[in-house]
Amino acid sequence: GTPFDPTNDPHRRYNPLLGEWVLVSPHRAKRPWQGASEEPNNEQKPSYDASCYLCPTNTRVNGEVNPDYKGTFVFQNDFAALKQDTEQASEKSGLFQFETEQGCSRVICFSPDHSKTLPELTDDERVDVVNTWKAQTEELGKTYRWVQVFENKGSMMGCSNPHPHGQVWAQQHVPTDPAKKVVQLKQYFGDNGTPMLLDYAEQEVAKQERVVCQNDDWVVVVPYWAAWPFETLLLPRFDVQSLHKLSDSQSLSLAKIIGEITAKYDNLFETSFPYSMGWHSAPFDNEGHPEWTLHAHFFPPLLRSASVRKFMVGYEMMAEAQRDLTPEQAADRLKALPTVHYKKREN
Amino acid sequence: GTPFDPTNDPHRRYNPLLGEWVLVSPHRAKRPWQGASEEPNNEQKPSYDASCYLCPTNTRVNGEVNPDYKGTFVFQNDFAALKQDTEQASEKSGLFQFETEQGCSRVICFSPDHSKTLPELTDDERVDVVNTWKAQTEELGKTYRWVQVFENKGSMMGCSNPHPHGQVWAQQHVPTDPAKKVVQLKQYFGDNGTPMLLDYAEQEVAKQERVVCQNDDWVVVVPYWAAWPFETLLLPRFDVQSLHKLSDSQSLSLAKIIGEITAKYDNLFETSFPYSMGWHSAPFDNEGHPEWTLHAHFFPPLLRSASVRKFMVGYEMMAEAQRDLTPEQAADRLKALPTVHYKKREN
Ligand SMILES: O=P(O)(O)O[C@H]1O[C@H](CO)[C@@H](O)[C@H](O)[C@H]1O
Ligand SMILES: O=P(O)(O)O[C@H]1O[C@H](CO)[C@@H](O)[C@H](O)[C@H]1O
Repeated sequence: GTPFDPTNDPHRRYNPLLGEWVLVSPHRAKRPWQGASEEPNNEQKPSYDASCYLCPTNTRVNGEVNPDYKGTFVFQNDFAALKQDTEQASEKSGLFQFETEQGCSRVICFSPDHSKTLPELTDDERVDVVNTWKAQTEELGKTYRWVQVFENKGSMMGCSNPHPHGQVWAQQHVPTDPAKKVVQLKQYFGDNGTPMLLDYAEQEVAKQERVVCQNDDWVVVVPYWAAWPFETLLLPRFDVQSLHKLSDSQSLSLAKIIGEITAKYDNLFETSFPYSMGWHSAPFDNEGHPEWTLHAHFFPPLLRSASVRKFMVGYEMMAEAQRDLTPEQAADRLKALPTVHYKKREN
Repeated sequence: GTPFDPTNDPHRRYNPLLGEWVLVSPHRAKRPWQGASEEPNNEQKPSYDASCYLCPTNTRVNGEVNPDYKGTFVFQNDFAALKQDTEQASEKSGLFQFETEQGCSRVICFSPDHSKTLPELTDDERVDVVNTWKAQTEELGKTYRWVQVFENKGSMMGCSNPHPHGQVWAQQHVPTDPAKKVVQLKQYFGDNGTPMLLDYAEQEVAKQERVVCQNDDWVVVVPYWAAWPFETLLLPRFDVQSLHKLSDSQSLSLAKIIGEITAKYDNLFETSFPYSMGWHSAPFDNEGHPEWTLHAHFFPPLLRSASVRKFMVGYEMMAEAQRDLTPEQAADRLKALPTVHYKKREN
């Protein structure tokens, strides 16, 4: 037969962070798409929207009035998935196991300007967002074992309000995926004496095959084991376990690289690029976690255009994640894009 | 504090099949929804559509002409995610691990009638579908270790053609989720000497809290650990490892219960209910697998109506699955629905 060609032949890649595999079927990218098409949302929004419950001075569903905030603004989620005072109870044997959960959910508005998204803010405004993530992580880490900072961007990602915002959910137990990472990262640290993700960042920087952008402190790669078409992993190039340990200069370089990757995303299909992104700081369990490296994931669903997405259904729900182009092909496309946002480009 | 109330207080439930947890936040069901709304597809389709590449006698993208088939019809996927002749290659150490994959993907048309779906077929026609699944599983299991039978129904689930059809993908390696199940089921079998899912089916039948429908051979439950709002698990009430081992009478009782659960699904929001469903027969690795029980999952995304779905994004992608109503509440609603399809009901 013909020798294996990773740009054309089906193969599986191993995700060492989760201990799971992904099926790569590069030749599938050629199939015509006759399925659902998404509504791209490209209308220009106003800076202030009287009907938006996140805009400054507006009233929320529960009757509270938002302050006339000028930077970021954090408040308790009006329909929180977690409550701090749930009574302790559990059943830990048999086939009907449960445990009660204590925690809290907050909303983080990134800017008072209803019309802006992360790539359209200035570096200073993004530093304000980074500092808010840091402060929330530090505060909630004093009470809860897990602090999950994340952003759902775009209605395709279940976001119900276009006002730029994310969330932070904190809880007593370490959830399923982070718990898998603790196991995988500890195993690697035990075997190698170094944090897996720092080694990985260094090897990717040396290879440059999947690097989308980098600066002295940070690197963004399409990971070798990416599942979503244009998935990226944002890694520090220095040893750090948690968001709140970043210095001021590391926060500024982070604000800059977030500006770059999110602008590239918007530029890819000239649309406000939908994604879920989230931060994984080490669990707050007083264990130090030398095996852990702070990192962020971007999981964006679009595949071919502003209106054609990847569906993780059927085979993917029953068997394992599957992708239709290689991570290297995705990285090449993202790397080639400008970091100036398409809306700001001169004609 | 007030004692723990599982119908109102946040808690986590353990999925013993995958070894993962799901966060249950029942009070979230009360939140208003201002996000994306889906287009329900309720138009009456014709029995034959000249532009459909799955209808009998029509020509497909690759120039092949479909036969004038009268029952089910199976053909090689024109854009298969797997190929049988991929060269062997792998790298099994370090952070860039891969292995090539050999396999095949086929499309299974359930009926020549473009306008019908599983719940709208007769029991005899559904037996034909079951027999086709059995024959495909048996044939492909001779060559490949894993045979994944599944159906993506509805454009919301990435299905690109409404003609009633499913797929079968077969491959050399056991994929991620089934591999987790092998570990969990073996562990339970080692500890208890009985197959976990047979014990589970029996306990659910005794409790009747989450049973949606049952007959002498089969039971459908909203599993205690369900992640999707109206997720169900279809279990045999007898010891069987693989689809192709079903007797004729077990195939008929299966056809009947599939008719019931899919009719209930359509009746829930009076719409053609979208889902991904799939069968897990034991791996074909000549190991016998006494720990394994054949089973099927239905993963449907709708939450509140034909147009409001659950998004598994953000927290769910970063941390763990989260649901907004309890499995018992979902089971109560499904159980109360008639098994006669709403389109066939007299006015
Ligand atoms: O093969 P289809 O039906 O064109 O494609 C559909 O099912 C596949 C298998 O579940 C998925 O990988 C695709 O994302 C989905 O759109
Ligand atoms: O809290 P929101 O933004 O209303 O809701 C959104 O994010 C949550 C957390 O990722 C998800 O559970 C919801 O399905 C999604 O619609």
